[in-house]
Parts: sequence; structure tokens; C-alpha cells
Amino acid sequence: MPSLNGAATVPKVATRHPLEQLSVDEVEIARQAVLDARKTFGVLFRNIYAVEPAKAQLVKFLNAEHAGTLSPDTPRPPRQARVQYDTISEDRSHELLESIVDLTSGKEVELRKAPTVAQTALIKDEFVEFTEVCVKSEKFKQAIQEFNLDDKYEIAIDPWPCGGPNPDDVEPRYTQGLIYAKLKHENPDTNHYGFPLPIIPVMDTFKKEIIRIDRLATGGTEDGLAYGTGPKDILGHCKPVEYVPELLDTPLRTDLKPLNVSQPDGPSFTVSDDSLIEWQKWRFRVGFTPRECAVLHDVHYDGRSVLYRLSLSEMTVPYGDPRPPFHRKQAFDFGDVGAGRAANNLELGCDCLGVIKYLDAVLVDSEGKPSVSKNVVCIHEQDNGIGWKHTNFRTNRAVVTRSRELVVQFIITLANYEYIFAYKLDQAGGITVETRATGMVSVVNIDPGKTSPWGNVVSPGALAQNHQHIFAIRVDPAIDGHENTIITEESLPIPMNPKTNPWGNGYEIVRKPVTKSTAIHASPFTNLNVKIANTNKINPISQRPVAYKFTPMPTQLMLADPQSIVAKRAAFAQHHVWVTKYKDEELFAAGEFTNQSQLEIGGVADAVARNEDVENNDVVVWNVFGLTHNPRVEDWPVMPVEIHQFHLRPADFFDRNPALDVPGQKNISSVEVGRNGSAADCCHNGATNGTESANGTVQGEPTSHRQGSVAVPVEQLNGH
Amino acid sequence: MPSLNGAATVPKVATRHPLEQLSVDEVEIARQAVLDARKTFGVLFRNIYAVEPAKAQLVKFLNAEHAGTLSPDTPRPPRQARVQYDTISEDRSHELLESIVDLTSGKEVELRKAPTVAQTALIKDEFVEFTEVCVKSEKFKQAIQEFNLDDKYEIAIDPWPCGGPNPDDVEPRYTQGLIYAKLKHENPDTNHYGFPLPIIPVMDTFKKEIIRIDRLATGGTEDGLAYGTGPKDILGHCKPVEYVPELLDTPLRTDLKPLNVSQPDGPSFTVSDDSLIEWQKWRFRVGFTPRECAVLHDVHYDGRSVLYRLSLSEMTVPYGDPRPPFHRKQAFDFGDVGAGRAANNLELGCDCLGVIKYLDAVLVDSEGKPSVSKNVVCIHEQDNGIGWKHTNFRTNRAVVTRSRELVVQFIITLANYEYIFAYKLDQAGGITVETRATGMVSVVNIDPGKTSPWGNVVSPGALAQNHQHIFAIRVDPAIDGHENTIITEESLPIPMNPKTNPWGNGYEIVRKPVTKSTAIHASPFTNLNVKIANTNKINPISQRPVAYKFTPMPTQLMLADPQSIVAKRAAFAQHHVWVTKYKDEELFAAGEFTNQSQLEIGGVADAVARNEDVENNDVVVWNVFGLTHNPRVEDWPVMPVEIHQFHLRPADFFDRNPALDVPGQKNISSVEVGRNGSAADCCHNGATNGTESANGTVQGEPTSHRQGSVAVPVEQLNGH
Repeated sequence: MPSLNGAATVPKVATRHPLEQLSVDEVEIARQAVLDARKTFGVLFRNIYAVEPAKAQLVKFLNAEHAGTLSPDTPRPPRQARVQYDTISEDRSHELLESIVDLTSGKEVELRKAPTVAQTALIKDEFVEFTEVCVKSEKFKQAIQEFNLDDKYEIAIDPWPCGGPNPDDVEPRYTQGLIYAKLKHENPDTNHYGFPLPIIPVMDTFKKEIIRIDRLATGGTEDGLAYGTGPKDILGHCKPVEYVPELLDTPLRTDLKPLNVSQPDGPSFTVSDDSLIEWQKWRFRVGFTPRECAVLHDVHYDGRSVLYRLSLSEMTVPYGDPRPPFHRKQAFDFGDVGAGRAANNLELGCDCLGVIKYLDAVLVDSEGKPSVSKNVVCIHEQDNGIGWKHTNFRTNRAVVTRSRELVVQFIITLANYEYIFAYKLDQAGGITVETRATGMVSVVNIDPGKTSPWGNVVSPGALAQNHQHIFAIRVDPAIDGHENTIITEESLPIPMNPKTNPWGNGYEIVRKPVTKSTAIHASPFTNLNVKIANTNKINPISQRPVAYKFTPMPTQLMLADPQSIVAKRAAFAQHHVWVTKYKDEELFAAGEFTNQSQLEIGGVADAVARNEDVENNDVVVWNVFGLTHNPRVEDWPVMPVEIHQFHLRPADFFDRNPALDVPGQKNISSVEVGRNGSAADCCHNGATNGTESANGTVQGEPTSHRQGSVAVPVEQLNGH
Repeated sequence: MPSLNGAATVPKVATRHPLEQLSVDEVEIARQAVLDARKTFGVLFRNIYAVEPAKAQLVKFLNAEHAGTLSPDTPRPPRQARVQYDTISEDRSHELLESIVDLTSGKEVELRKAPTVAQTALIKDEFVEFTEVCVKSEKFKQAIQEFNLDDKYEIAIDPWPCGGPNPDDVEPRYTQGLIYAKLKHENPDTNHYGFPLPIIPVMDTFKKEIIRIDRLATGGTEDGLAYGTGPKDILGHCKPVEYVPELLDTPLRTDLKPLNVSQPDGPSFTVSDDSLIEWQKWRFRVGFTPRECAVLHDVHYDGRSVLYRLSLSEMTVPYGDPRPPFHRKQAFDFGDVGAGRAANNLELGCDCLGVIKYLDAVLVDSEGKPSVSKNVVCIHEQDNGIGWKHTNFRTNRAVVTRSRELVVQFIITLANYEYIFAYKLDQAGGITVETRATGMVSVVNIDPGKTSPWGNVVSPGALAQNHQHIFAIRVDPAIDGHENTIITEESLPIPMNPKTNPWGNGYEIVRKPVTKSTAIHASPFTNLNVKIANTNKINPISQRPVAYKFTPMPTQLMLADPQSIVAKRAAFAQHHVWVTKYKDEELFAAGEFTNQSQLEIGGVADAVARNEDVENNDVVVWNVFGLTHNPRVEDWPVMPVEIHQFHLRPADFFDRNPALDVPGQKNISSVEVGRNGSAADCCHNGATNGTESANGTVQGEPTSHRQGSVAVPVEQLNGH
């Protein structure tokens, strides 16, 4: 049975790599252990996945692996599964539990209960149930009947997590739904999002009962927070804008010619059966969890340790429309649903170009039964333009290399919306984490002819509400070892002064180590950089500590009032950088339980509050960045990607440009367009200028427009 | 003779497009007119290039062109050449002049003199002369002799512009030089930059005489601004780090396999003989000037006007080492030298992949004689990953398109350093201006074992000084016409309040039109966007003015003391955005004459000071962004590219996502890596999953891990 990596045969539990995902067999073992232990209850499974070993244990194993001393006798961390589930009593009450199962013995070794106020992430069954319960609900039927809809419509229901309860409210587990009408059509992919209905049914999840129908405002600027004067014909002014090509009201472009990426000798990377990836001096493992999707582990470059673990940790999407109950529109897509479970099954030729390696994941249904979700992660190489170039103006010799990247990508769909996440490694020792926001913006009904301060009308009758996306990346560094120091570095002016800055051009770099766990704000106007340094190891050239660095992206943080529930349940979104002391299992910026939370518990703010020593210590850095998304008409019906990138780069880690040995091979498949510019002339394959030298680098053509200069022998200058 | 576009035959003056570059014939006419008019003097030519017609005239012509009413009788702006040159009197004194020559009559129609304090840009002859004058100079020879250099060295001289004179100094035209030793070697491309010598000779340019040798500090932190204790053996501790592949002390990587971009049907763009480019609904012309290199003119999308002109306007590179005379290390690479004249002659297969169209430029030597500089601009298509994607979770149908970009790129070399500039147009109506900094960082000698607050030791004995790169992009918009309004848009919190923001999640967008010419600071924490709107034209969907927008990049601006010459000569570098009223020929952020300036004259600050009405007017927007570059060891010997991007995007300009009609064709050349991960399995060409439907879009595979949901007929809900 396939593992994450699709290998046909899976080694026994005891010899699998500690960072490998559970096999289907291992999931079965874990499932059975829980069913055995909880046999007097009904069990609703949520997740079964591998326990990441405690760092202290795993590091010993990895050190042996890197030293080449691994043997059957090397102590291994215990191979364990994490099983998340509800026990259901006869009165239908649920208890939210987590068992740790030892996979060698097949026994439960630990049982954890979620705190009373906590709700675990939603699973598919709950979304399906939501629709079923809605359709049967008299409350819901009545609400729909009030709209007096034409028979040409169907009703489409998008289940959503229910946001944060109002202060002092103690709520049972709820699910809410956004409701749309959908034109009946033989094509099931007509776009229903252009027909929003102004109601939100709320379900008591465990009771399976719609407990209320929230009414939504449909007014405009002139109505303030009031409901609006809504038309009787609630959808009469709405219009469909389709996105599937066969339904478009305009023809597809016919003048876009194919652009293929071919790799005739195959990829430059290798992926082993236990998800070890080697590429261009990089060596790392790709892990997978239902919550985070792809995670990078044990990242080395040229035999030197860079990161212990790199992950997308959390994101929150609060909506800025103050009219109740829109304050309950706030998703935590990782904590409320799970990026791994929402990951697209990627398609060859669609989501990447070139030679692609796909990774699968083992997920479970609510009975705990495993199945393989295919192609949830893709790995491929990409050209990112010129990597470095220099032309010697004396000889006109140009040396130019391209920048090749290795991309580890996954894409998640959350009802209307899509995110594309990618880890990109480059040949110069850099790592980029990229987010692309796309999909359909969330819309609500607005009265005919009105506009609103709370969003933009992107389709007749459809107001796309202003909102934010705030992401958290978790960087667990291991810069030449696990004892690292965070150093802030700012470039500051020095007043003009005869003694220290006589002509006023000088500026200074102010460096400060972070000694205690803390939060840091981005500061672009002082050029704030955050260095992750190993102060125990000095770069022999610069005599400064070896380090990686990043520039915190100066983006807007949480706009909601700090006293609001919206803000309190996402305390991580108050600062751009958090520096915490490493603690096993502390992976989630907003804490483990985000669904329906009123407060961030066990997130980065709590971790910082421990006020621990982080200097020359096992430190974790969290980067938060956001996108305030006030929609444009151009975002409808599916928005063009909006891209953000987080860059981690070596800073005195190496003793020179680590990409210096990248060959500047001439790409002989490139073609020059004929000078009359017609396409017909472009297809011959032949280089028409430049010569290729034996070592693969390129000699430039002489040109008459260089700045001339010569080198002069010293003796010529000494002789007179 | 070739025009910019390399056409074999060039139309006569009168019928050439007003935005076309001068042909070789036209340059000859202009040259002769000046020689005729100035015949009692020696003439040193600097530039001969086309005069861009006054906007009032050109717009009439372009309107006729777009209306399809162009005829031989359409009034044309006069075809003119701009000739920049010095007249040289018998006493060797120079006068810096500019003539406007009418190309139809062959007569000078206007003569302009540069202001007394102004110095024009440096030309190749002056760089060549600098080296020749140095080598003959007794002062220079003596200085070199003091170093007592071994015969194994040669001397390499990098001429530089001379920066800004100290206050109250009135200087003649100067050129300075950075001096390096170079190991004698049969390979002329050994890297001399690792052997900096601590002197800067300064030449009186017109007298052709080294007037002084500035001594450079070589001390470290402990020496403050003092000269340092420098070793007798000034280069003994320096070491070469080579970058040309045949000289590397490590082998080149052998595990990077080819990645080819093939376009079997040719490019999707066309380039006409008069530089009109059409691609994916975009239509624009590429112009060329010796100062700016490639310029985009008359940019339309789908028949609608977006921009009148888009250019890289200026950049300044001040060095932050306060020890004199390093305050004179401040280049304006566009104004002091000229990006067009410093442009690389690009090589097929090196600087871009795929199918490339190259454009040439006609440049002149100091005798005014034209020659064609080949391949100074390249145009090609590029894949930029996913353009938009949505998966219908009900049907699992994914629609995904890729984002194709058209790239207009040029690369400039300025002695040690390189910049790669690109205009990128995308299918969603967006335009990106990208800068990549690469090449060799500028180093000075530092005593053995020392470190410095003013830079980083990147190679033994070589201190790479801290510096900034501050760029200015000039955007001359024409959003559905020439009367545009700049609107700032900020997203601001609203305090929690029962009446206006009961749950605290609401935030407001505050929009303000710019009424008078002004400067604006980037403000990322209020999500400041700058909209370029046409308030006379309302988007029918959103009911807001049609617009394009950009987010000013929040980067550090000029660090030098505002009272310093370094800062005063680059007033543009004090703000991120400048909004000015259009004025013919006002193209340069730091003014026309930057070389050896003490003050920015005629730059954006002066334009703003005119305090003109800019609302609903012919407005120009300038975007300034910077890169504070405190070098890393990894930047040596050639730095990996550091990338910055400026994004201009439609905001309610269109009535939907303009890329909605981009076909989601499956790329059938993509290949999946075999499940055992070996390269040998990767080379078969065949899609192994997914099916291609007739219309070119892709149906996803069903998967068991979707959130299930169904659409419900309204009658079912109405019936109970």
C-alpha cells in the first residue's frame, strides 16, 4: 500500500524514517488501538497522522544519519500515531479526544482531552451534514420561502466555520452556512456566487439542528448598519458571471501559443521513498500533516544545517464589514479546517510545468479508514531568470548564470477561495515561502443601485466585502546547530558632524541580540532585518557570526479593534515577528484550537509570555504578514493571483556566493525572432549570435559602445 | 541601414512613426547640421537621438492612429533630433550645448546651453582618457610607487563620475578613478576587484590632467575616521576570488540538468518594423533613449488607453562610509552615464529563455558617427505560474490558467556593477517594473584582521562598503484619457463602538484625491494604495471611477543627512511618491544634469514646488524605492540577484477579471516523475493522470477528501 511517497512496498514500522508519514497499515493499527480503548462509545475520527518525535530524540537520530553512522542499533524515537476523534455518548454528547498510539505495540500510550471551551477542526462529514440538516430544517425552509424564488433556481450552501462567539457567550459547537441561489443548468459548474441570499443558518453541530437563521444586511452607504430596504425580488438585479470556459459569454483567446518547459535529461532532483529530497546541494525531507500540508524538515545545504523545520503555521481571514453577524465571518483555514485536508489533487500539466514529482497523503474518513489522497504536493524545478551576471567591460566577457529554483507546492480550496503555497529553494542558499491568493471573493447581497463602504460591488447585487488575510510562517532554525540567536539589524542615519560624519553620507548599522522571547514589528524605514545567527561560529572572512536573515514584510496587521473577539482570537496577527523558545508540539501561531475560539490560547503570544531566554538557545521565529484585500471588480468572478513572498537568505553563512559554481551554460534551445518579427520565422532552431565555448560559458560579442579601459603593468608605472 | 528594430529598409523621415528611434541616416543628417552650424569650433558629440514630440502634438497623431484615420494628410509632429555635444575652443574650454535639428529640412531649429554649473553625462571617450591620463601622470605614478608593488601585478583603473562637490566648491569637470591591482595572468578575466588600492586619482576632464590623488582610509572600527595604520604591504593580505568558470578553485556543478523553454508555434507577440508590440490585448511601442534605455509608449489594453509613457527615470547609489572622500562615491547611473549607453549586447540563450526578439539601438561616438548597438533590449514571453484557479468543491471541477508575461528587458553594466531592468506585462492587465541588482559590490582596502562599521569584509583585505540604491520610476498615465486624478486610499481601524462598529471587526477605507502637486510617503501599516483614476469615467459595476493602482513599496529612503550634498543632489530620494503636473521634457527625477551636481535642479522636487493643480488633469506619478545594501560575504565576488518589483494593477478599470478568457489549456509536454523517483523514469512524454476535454480545460479527478455539499432545488424547500 502506498506511503506518502507512493512506494509500492512499505517497510515495517520499526525501520521507517522517523519523519515519514504514516502508511495505510500504520493508520489501521492506530485506528484499531483507539476503537479497542474506547469500545463503549461511538467514535468519530477526525485525523490520524504521525507524531513528530520530540526534538531531543529526533536530533540524535538525525545527527547519526548525517554522520553516516546509522545502523540497526541506532536508538530510534518511538514510532507513534496521533489520533484525533470524538467519543459520542448515547445522549449524542461528544468528548473531543486525542490518543497517542505506539505503533510497535499497537497500544494507546497517552490520552488527552481538549479543554472544555475548545472546538476541534471541522471535517467533511460536518460540512455534508450541515447541508442535509439545512434542507430538512423548517426554519431554513421558511426563510427561503420568504424570498419567493423562481423555480429556475436551486439553493447552494457553503458551510463555514462559525467564527468567534460574542463575549460572555458560551456556545456549543456550531457550523454556519453562506447561502446562494444557483441557476438550474445542465452544466453543474454554473457560478452561484453571483446570487447571494441574505441569510446565514446556524447549526448546532452535535444536535444536528438549525438553531437560528441570521438575517444579513443588504443596504448601502445610506443605510449605515441597518438591514437595508432590500427589494422584494432579492435576486432580480443579480447577474451571472461565469468562469468555466464553456459558459463564458466571450470566446477564449486564440492567440496564446504554447510555452513548454522541457527537461530532456529529467529533473535535477531526486526523491527517495522516504521523502528525502536532494537537489543542488540542498537536502531535506518533505513531511505532511492534515493541518499544515507540506512541511520541510531537516534542511541542509552542502552538508550544513540550516533549518530544523519550516511550515505554514496559520492564517486568519477576518471580514471588515461591521454589520452583525459578519463579525462571525473569520476563518482560520489551517486550524478550523486543515490545509492538508483541503489540498487539491494536482493535475499534470495544469498546476506546474516541466518534470513534476507528486506526493500523496494518507487521510482518514470519520470512521478512521485511511485512503490515499493523490498528488497533494508537487515538486518541480523552475527557471527564475538571471541568477547573477557580470560583464568585464575591459574584455566584454560576460558570465551569466540562470537561477534555478526547486518548488514544493500545494494548493488548497476552501469553499469559494483558493491559496497556492510554495516553498522555493534556490542555488544561492535562499529559501522563499510564497503565497498566492486566488479563487472567488466572498460576496453578500446588496440592494440595487447601492454602493457600500464595507466592500465593492463586483457583480450586480453582489458586494465583495473588505477583508484581510493574515498568514504566519513558522521557522525553526538550525543555523549550523540548534543554538541560535536572533539579532535585529537596523540602518540608521548619523547626523552630519565634523567628527563622525563630516559630509553627512555616513550611516550606521545597529545590531541588537534578542535575549528574551518577544514580538517585533516590521520597520522598513529603518531597514530592519532579522538575523538568525549562530554566534558560536564565526565567518572566517567577515569575522561576523554565521547567519541567515529575512526582512519582515511590512504589511498591515489586524485592523479589528484589539478588544474585539476577532482580534483576541488571533493575537498572532498583532506583530510581524515573534521570537519564542522552542517547545515540542508548539507549532500553531494561533494555538491548537482555533475553531469558534474567543481567545488565542497556546499561540505565539502565550509562548512569548513565558519570557524565556532565547539568546544562544533553541529559538523559533514566526513571521506574520498580511494582505488587506479590498476587492476590485477585476477580482470577479475568479481573482488573478495576488502574490506575497517571504525570503530567507544566507548572511555571512558561506564564504562566497554559493551559486558561484553554477555553470553558465548557454541554453541552446532558445530561438531568436526573425528581424521582420513574423512568427513564421521564429521556429527554426539555431543560435544566430554568440559562440559557445568549451566550458559552457559565453563570450560576448565585441561592441563599439563599451567604456574602454586597460590594465597597466606596474613596472610601466614604476619606471618613470 | 538598420533602425532600432533592425529593418533592412528605413522609410523616409517624413513617414516614420513619431515614436520611432532615429535611423542611421537621420543621425547623419543631425550630425551634419550641427557641424555646419558650429563650424568654427571643435565638436565633441555626446548623444544624438530622436526628440519625442510635444504631448499636445503627439496625442493628436496617436488619436488618429487609434481611430484608424491616419492618412498621408494627417498632420505629423515635426521629426527632430536632439544633439548633445561640447564645442571646444582653442584654449580647450568646453561649452555644453544641445541642438534641436529638424530632420526634414536638415537645419538646426533650436540651440540650448547647459547652465554654467551643470556637467553633462560622461561618455566612453572620457573613461578611456581617464586611464590614459592616469598612466602618464607623475602624481599617479608616484602614488603607485609608494605601494612598492610586486611585478606580478598590473594596475586596473575603473573610472567613476566624481560625485557632488563639497559645499561652496566650484569645480571644473572632474572624473575620478577607483584603482585596483590585477594579477598578471594569461586569462584577462582574472578578478582584480579583490585587490583594491587606497587611492583615488581625480582628473580635470577638459584639461586632461590628474589634479590630485585622494588617499583612502584602510582602518577598521578601532580607527574611527582616521586613515588607519595600513600595512607596508598593502595587498599582502588580499586574496583573489575568481568568478569566470575556468579560474574557479572549485569544479562547476555537474548535476544541473537542462531546462528548456520551447515555443513550437513561435511567440504570441508581434513586433512591427516601427517597434509596435502587440501581445494578449496589449499594444504599445518600445522606444529607446541613450539615458533611459527601453521606454514604453502609448500603452493600451484591449483598445483602451492605460499609459502614455513608462520609464526608469533615475537612480542614485550613495555610499555610507563617512570617511572622506567616500562621500564622493555617489553615482547617478542614468544621469551620469546613461542606461542606454551602458546596455549589454544580449546573447541568445543567456539572458532569457524561449523565443526572443531583440531590439538594437543607434548610438554615436564622440565624432557623432552612428553605429548600431545590437540586442540592447530583449522581448520574450515567460510563464509566471498559476494565473487564477478555482475548484468547485461540489463537482471537483478545477479551472486553472497559467499567467503568461511579456518581458521587455535590458541589462546595464557600470564598471563593477550590473542592473537587470524589466517591464513585464501580464494577461490580467497588470504591469510590473522589475529591478535586479547583481554584479560586483564596490570594495576598498582594509587593514589585515580589522572589521569596520562602514561595511563588511567580503574577501581578505576587501571591505564592501554599505550603500543604498534608490530608483525612480516615472509613470505618465493615460487611464482612458489624459485627464487623471491621483487618489490615496488607506484602510484604517474604527474603534469598537455600539453604533458604528459593534463587534470591532469593521474598518474603513479613506480615499483622498490629490489636488495639488505633492510628495507622498509609503505607509504600509495603513495599507496605503495610490490610485490613478479617471473620475470622468465610472465603472458600471462598482460605480467607482476607473483606475489603476499601485502600493508604494515601503523601502528605506536616503539615509544621508538632509543637509548633506549627497542628499541635496538627490531630493527625489526623500519621498516614495511624487505627483506632478505633466510638462514636456520633464523626464528625470533628479533633473537633467546629475553629473557632479550639488543640488537637484529641475527634478521632481522642483516640479512639485510649482504647486500646480493635478486633479482631473494631465498628471505624472513618480515612484521611488530603494535597497539599503549592507553587503554579505555571499555577495562576493558576484552577487546573486536582489529583486524588487513595482506593480501597477487595474482597479475597477475592467468589468471583470480581464484574464477570464485565458484558456486553461493543459500543458501536454509536462512529465511526471516515476514513482520510484529516478530520473530515468522521468523522460517519457505522456500525461499519466487527468483528461483533456475538448475545450482545452481540465476535469479534475474525483477524490474522497472533498468537503461534500449539494445544490437543492428551490421547490424542494418550498414544498413543505
